[in-house]
Amino acid sequence: MLAPDPGWTDADCPVARTLDLVGDRWSLLVVRDAMDGARSFTEFQRRTGIARNILSDRLRKLIAHGLLAQRTAASGRRQEYVLTDAGRALFPVILTLRQWGERHAFAPDEPHSTLVDEHGVPVPEVVLTGRNGAPLDSDTTQVRKTR
Amino acid sequence: MLAPDPGWTDADCPVARTLDLVGDRWSLLVVRDAMDGARSFTEFQRRTGIARNILSDRLRKLIAHGLLAQRTAASGRRQEYVLTDAGRALFPVILTLRQWGERHAFAPDEPHSTLVDEHGVPVPEVVLTGRNGAPLDSDTTQVRKTR
Repeated sequence: MLAPDPGWTDADCPVARTLDLVGDRWSLLVVRDAMDGARSFTEFQRRTGIARNILSDRLRKLIAHGLLAQRTAASGRRQEYVLTDAGRALFPVILTLRQWGERHAFAPDEPHSTLVDEHGVPVPEVVLTGRNGAPLDSDTTQVRKTR
Repeated sequence: MLAPDPGWTDADCPVARTLDLVGDRWSLLVVRDAMDGARSFTEFQRRTGIARNILSDRLRKLIAHGLLAQRTAASGRRQEYVLTDAGRALFPVILTLRQWGERHAFAPDEPHSTLVDEHGVPVPEVVLTGRNGAPLDSDTTQVRKTR
């Protein structure tokens, strides 16, 4: 899936590589909308209000990075865009962005959309715990470099 | 914490609001480095290789959005930047970006940095399950709008 080294910002770091590939607002909003069922150029444009030239650029990059695939719709009339397995694997990123926003980017009484499961029940907050049940956060973890 | 409506891209959506606040590569790399112990302007600059004017801009925005706080270092000589509680709450976002990158942005034999716990044990992969233990992903969830 990966192209030869595209000039990584920080080649050793998986966080940085992911951000090099999808670390901009519009790319992640397109991924969000694809997860929510958007398929066509028009639909992505309508949901995000993104300018056409920026949307074209982001769709092209997401395809080049192997996150979206382009195919002809069943009607045979238009192109549609679907997430690849790698694109779908961004679900935990989108979910944790959502959950941070619910807590920190809305006033307590301000309404927002909700992610619900197949029974219509809101998805519970992701809780990160280590092997022994201790909380995982930036105080209890550290980055070990390869060199 | 929140400033009056800063012109949200998609005011109803917590994913979009989070991306409006931190959805660019450099902001999230600064958050990553702050979680890993960076405190000074010079240290942020050294770790990311970011241009000084861009770093100044991102530090200013992260402070304005309540994710970083500026304080005088114990030496009294320089300013340092520390994550607020809201900034530290981005840990699950940084971790899921990392874990996606480990799996999808490196070749199988390519080395990368590792996040380890206090015992030096690599942090396990985040597994998302719903109330009944069923997997949570974009197929088993949907967004419910407020209107």
